This record gives sequence, C-alpha cells and structure tokens, in this order.
Amino acid sequence: MKPSTPGFAFRVTSQQGNARTGELTTPHGVVHTPTFMPVGTQGSVKTLSPFEVANTGAQIVLGNTYHLWLRPGAEAIAALGGLHKFTLWPRAMLTDSGGFQAFSLAENRTVTEDGFTFRSHLDGSKRHLSPEEAMRVQGLIGADIAMQLDVCPPGDSARPVVEDACARTTRWARRCLAAKAPEQALFGIVQGGCDVELRLRHAAELAELPFDGLALGGFSVGEPIPRMHEAIAEVASRVDPERPRYMMGVGTPADLVVAIKAGVDMFDCVLPTRNARNGQALLRTGRVVIKQARYKDDSAPLDPECACPTCVAGYSRAYLRHLHFANELLVLRLFSEHNLFMYGQLVREAREAIVAGAYDAFEARWARAGKAD
Amino acid sequence: MKPSTPGFAFRVTSQQGNARTGELTTPHGVVHTPTFMPVGTQGSVKTLSPFEVANTGAQIVLGNTYHLWLRPGAEAIAALGGLHKFTLWPRAMLTDSGGFQAFSLAENRTVTEDGFTFRSHLDGSKRHLSPEEAMRVQGLIGADIAMQLDVCPPGDSARPVVEDACARTTRWARRCLAAKAPEQALFGIVQGGCDVELRLRHAAELAELPFDGLALGGFSVGEPIPRMHEAIAEVASRVDPERPRYMMGVGTPADLVVAIKAGVDMFDCVLPTRNARNGQALLRTGRVVIKQARYKDDSAPLDPECACPTCVAGYSRAYLRHLHFANELLVLRLFSEHNLFMYGQLVREAREAIVAGAYDAFEARWARAGKAD
Repeated sequence: MKPSTPGFAFRVTSQQGNARTGELTTPHGVVHTPTFMPVGTQGSVKTLSPFEVANTGAQIVLGNTYHLWLRPGAEAIAALGGLHKFTLWPRAMLTDSGGFQAFSLAENRTVTEDGFTFRSHLDGSKRHLSPEEAMRVQGLIGADIAMQLDVCPPGDSARPVVEDACARTTRWARRCLAAKAPEQALFGIVQGGCDVELRLRHAAELAELPFDGLALGGFSVGEPIPRMHEAIAEVASRVDPERPRYMMGVGTPADLVVAIKAGVDMFDCVLPTRNARNGQALLRTGRVVIKQARYKDDSAPLDPECACPTCVAGYSRAYLRHLHFANELLVLRLFSEHNLFMYGQLVREAREAIVAGAYDAFEARWARAGKAD
Repeated sequence: MKPSTPGFAFRVTSQQGNARTGELTTPHGVVHTPTFMPVGTQGSVKTLSPFEVANTGAQIVLGNTYHLWLRPGAEAIAALGGLHKFTLWPRAMLTDSGGFQAFSLAENRTVTEDGFTFRSHLDGSKRHLSPEEAMRVQGLIGADIAMQLDVCPPGDSARPVVEDACARTTRWARRCLAAKAPEQALFGIVQGGCDVELRLRHAAELAELPFDGLALGGFSVGEPIPRMHEAIAEVASRVDPERPRYMMGVGTPADLVVAIKAGVDMFDCVLPTRNARNGQALLRTGRVVIKQARYKDDSAPLDPECACPTCVAGYSRAYLRHLHFANELLVLRLFSEHNLFMYGQLVREAREAIVAGAYDAFEARWARAGKAD
C-alpha cells in the first residue's frame, strides 16, 4: 500500500549495484540520500548551534521523543510552535518513538501488548507509552517524520523472542498508522535481529502498510559487527526499493560504507558527537585521540585535508590538547563540528561516487576512516 | 619619563569632562578606548571561539599568566609561536603578571621582597614568581602588553599594609622595567586601596617611570562599592592623562559607567562570562535569570533590542531555559556571546557619547544595565 502523506515523496535518482542516491522531499526541504542525521537528543545537537549543524552538511536531524516528552514536554513544544521553531533548526527533522529510551533509560519499566509503562528517569513520574501515545506526542513535537513504536530485542536474544518482537511491532505498526497525524510522515521499523529470514519476512509484512519509509531497527544492539554487516548486506536491498530505508542508531564510518553499499539511505548515530566530547577526532585516515602525548607540540590542524571550520581556522592539535586538559568547553564544540563535518563529507562523497559509478574507489578511499591506529 | 616601546602609542581623541576617548596603537591593531577586555583565562574566553569574541566588539583580550605558566607552560606557548598564534586571537592582547592568582589560587604561598613563592594548584610543584620571572614568563607568552608584578592588599587592609604594598609595588616596578622584553609594552599598577591620598601619591611615583600605561589595581577586592566609586572618581583623572588608564578586574555595567566618566580607558572582568555560565543574561534594562519560572513559555529573545547573534537568531527565553535545565552546553555559549556583546555595546555607546558630548544621556540610558529587578 502506497504512502500518501501530503508534502512527502521519495525517488531514487541513481544506482550502482544495490547502492543508490535519492531525493526525500519533506515540508522542510529535499534531503539528498544517502544522508546522515546528527542526533539532537534534547532539542540540541550537543554543543552546536543549528546553523553550525547545517554547515556540516546535515540536511535532517533527529530528536529524541523520550527526552523531549519528559522535558520540556510535548505540549510545551507545541505551544511554542513545534520543534523546528523551538530549536531554530531550518531543515527536515525526524523523531524516534521514545520506545528505545523508555526501555533503556527509564526505571521500573514493563512492557505489555498495550505499550511501555515506566517511571521518568528525571522525576520518577509514571508514564505510559502506547502506539497511540507515541503518535500523539510526536504529533505535538511536530517533526517532519515520526517513527512507529516498536519492540527492539537485545542483540543476543533467542529466535522466539525476536519473532515475538516482530509480531508485536507489526501490530503496533497498524495502531500507529491509525493514530498518526495526517500531515506527518511515518516510518515503520523492521526487526528480526541478525536473522535474515526473519528480517525479510518482517520487511515484507511492513511493506504491505502505507508507511512513508521503512527503518531497520535492532542493529548495533550488542551483536558482533561482522554479523550485522552480513545481515545488512543480505537484507537492505530487499526492503521495498520505492521507499527510503533508514538504518537506526548506526554507526561507525565503516558501518556506513557497508550499509550504503547494501542499499541503505539514511542513518543516525551519536558516535560523532559523543566521541568529540571524549576528545576523539575522526579522520578519513584514522583518528586523533587528543590526550595522547604525541600531540603536545603538534602545530598541525586535526586533519590538514579537512574543510571543516575547526581545521580551516587552523586550531593546532597542541592548542586543542591544551583546551582538553584545561577543561575548556570550546574544545567540545570544535571536535563536534569536525566530526559531524567528516560524516557529512562521507555521505556527500558516497552520493558522488554512486552517481559516477565509482563506489569501489570511494570504499577504498574511506577504508581506514575513524579507525584507531 | 616617556615610554618608548616600539609599535605602541596612545593619544586622547576627544574629551567630555574627565571622560575621554582614545586610540591605543599596538602591533595587533588600534584599540579604541574606552574598551572592555574579555578574559581568556587559560587561552580561551570561556565557551567562545576567538572569532565570536571579536564579533562582540572586543578589540583586546586578557590572558592569565598564572594559568598559562602552569599549563601548558610559557615555553610551550613560545615554541608554538606565542599566545596570538596559539589561540588564533587576531587582535591586541594583554597578560596580567600572575601575582594576583599566585596569591589567591595557589597553595602554601609566601611573599618576600623578592616575590611570591607558592605551590601550583594543579600539581603541587613549587614555583617562584619574582618581578624578573613575571617579565620572562610574559615575554615568552608574548602578548602585546604585559603587567608589572604588584602587591594587591585586600580591600579591608589597614593603612600601613596598603602603604607597604605601594612601596614594594614601586620597587618591583623598577625591576620589571629593567627586565622587560624590549618589544612588549608594560603597564605599571597603582595601589592604595580606597585612600585617595595614597592612590595619588603612588600614581605620581609610577608616572615617573617609563610605563606604556598605568593601571589601577586593588579595586573590587572586598571594599564597599560606593567607596570604590568615590575613590575612582577622585583618582582616575589625576593619573597621567597622556597614558592609557586601566582599571583591573572591574566590573559591573554600573562600575564601567562611573569609571569611564572618571577618566578610565580600559577594563577587564570575568563578570559577563561567569554570569553567562550561571544562566544570567545582562541587559541594558536589567537582567534575565533564565531559571525563573516566568520564562517557561516566553517566546521572546533575551533582549528584543539587542543585535548580538543570540538575540538576532531569535532563540526564545523558553528554549534557553530548557537548554539550561537540560544541561545543554550550547546555552553557555549563547549567554556568553550575548553578555560580551552587551559590554561591547556599552563601551561603543560610551565612546559615541563622549565624542558627541552626550555622556549624561548615555548614563541615564544605561542606569539600570545588568541590575536585578
């Protein structure tokens, strides 16, 4: 069944093998895929202004429904004009359903057929997150794209647990579609762990429903990386090719290179911003761990090849290391901007490579990206 | 005795009563006075890039010798090309002597005629800061302007203590002048507490020496504010009018309005950046304490009249309050930028008012600046 949310469209613009470029049209502009979404957990991509985030090449950001629901509250955001106006982010936006954090962060959580019940990690207040509530809250927050409530089993779950998760996710998919805001796009979430058969069966089930996009959830939840890479290579290209494919919570530069090749269009991950705050700069050729003594007298920028504001301004590694040890907040931002720019560069080059039919050369060029020595 | 540091000059360009505008020429550009110097304690004006600091109107910043000497070390900064190159600050720079922090922050400190001996608050290492060492360290750091080592008695000191501080400060002044780097300007520091007679005597003593400027130290060290205002009104205009007058570590917007009227040309203070990090925005008409509940649903910017990047972008008070409670680092920067811009605006308008002979109107316009309700 075809999606019909007004203002949304997706078309594939070029293809090389399973890798593809596309255009996702939203009420806040066209997103060129493959794309990476920086994570603005609490309505802020940590340490950066929205204008700086846009300058890294990001065309869409992700907000966390769980956090925004608890603080400042979905009604408060709606009263202030929605998440775009609240945060001043000018381009497209997606919110997750809140289910993942309700399960991983909240206290006293239980899950039934109706949804998640938990206590807020902030004030202990009791909350219930059903498919309908997930739609209501995301509707108030008002991103362009909402995600269905799903059940995400740990990476080492037994097959019956994963099968049950898939079945309940499909039942919740129907309830979310019935409850969704008419003007907001909605993506379904394919579960199935690293079991290719379960993944394909669940992807086919959800493709029957009028979702605007299909996500691959339940990856990078503790399973071995090679298993994840094998599964994504088998599964991604067989998820409905007419809709955008979004791999949730993934990943490293290497994960992106593998998954784009397999046919994934969209990604989100806290890795570039979290590593930045730990003093790790990701480079196309590896990484800089700024606390290391070898950077003490190093007058070079983080990456002499990089065109991000941090590298172009010319902050030396020695100065960045000094700021790191002096606990100066500026350094967190300089690294965040660099790392997100590097992710922006990766997906930009991937798009160019696919158009040019040169994905192999792209893969080789980025083979060491973000890796430790 | 006239100063003779090459590349430096000061001239008064207009005057209204004791208030005056001037041009301080340095190897890193002309500083228009009255001016406010943001404080870059450890080689960074906290939370801001040097380009953002320049954009607030700042033409000169202050670095703390004590902090930079202990970390990353004066030799390390010199090896990396000096503090300008290290921090990417493109305009004029001044360093203090390190004496104030050696006394207030360090452990096991003692003071003799030769200088301060103390243990580093970072690693406990023993250090000795003599007038000659203060000059050597500041020479390595390489700001445009260095400060002499001085003795700064607390605001409630008895007269003999203040007299001794003045006398030793004069002896150290001569030693600093003898040891200074030829290409670096050096300012003397007038002590004397709130005793007008002692202040004037010490100012006359130091004016005999070839300093490039004269500072008023030992204010805002615990004395009542009205006493400080009275003393500055009596003293400032009688400090050698041919040299820039710098009031150290001061102050609030109200302090600046009073001291500029009295004839002071330069200021530095952590207040705008420290208050910013505490969630306080300073306005021409008062202040915004962002944690207050009344801003919960407030869609207005911090100051609708303000032209700073934070206010012009349009971040609402409600969003800033959310970031504050969510511990999002972005808010520290947005407030710092606003507060420093407000100080830049204050000194810019003061200069315009003096040129126009309209200081009274300026005083009235800024009468409530930064004050609590």
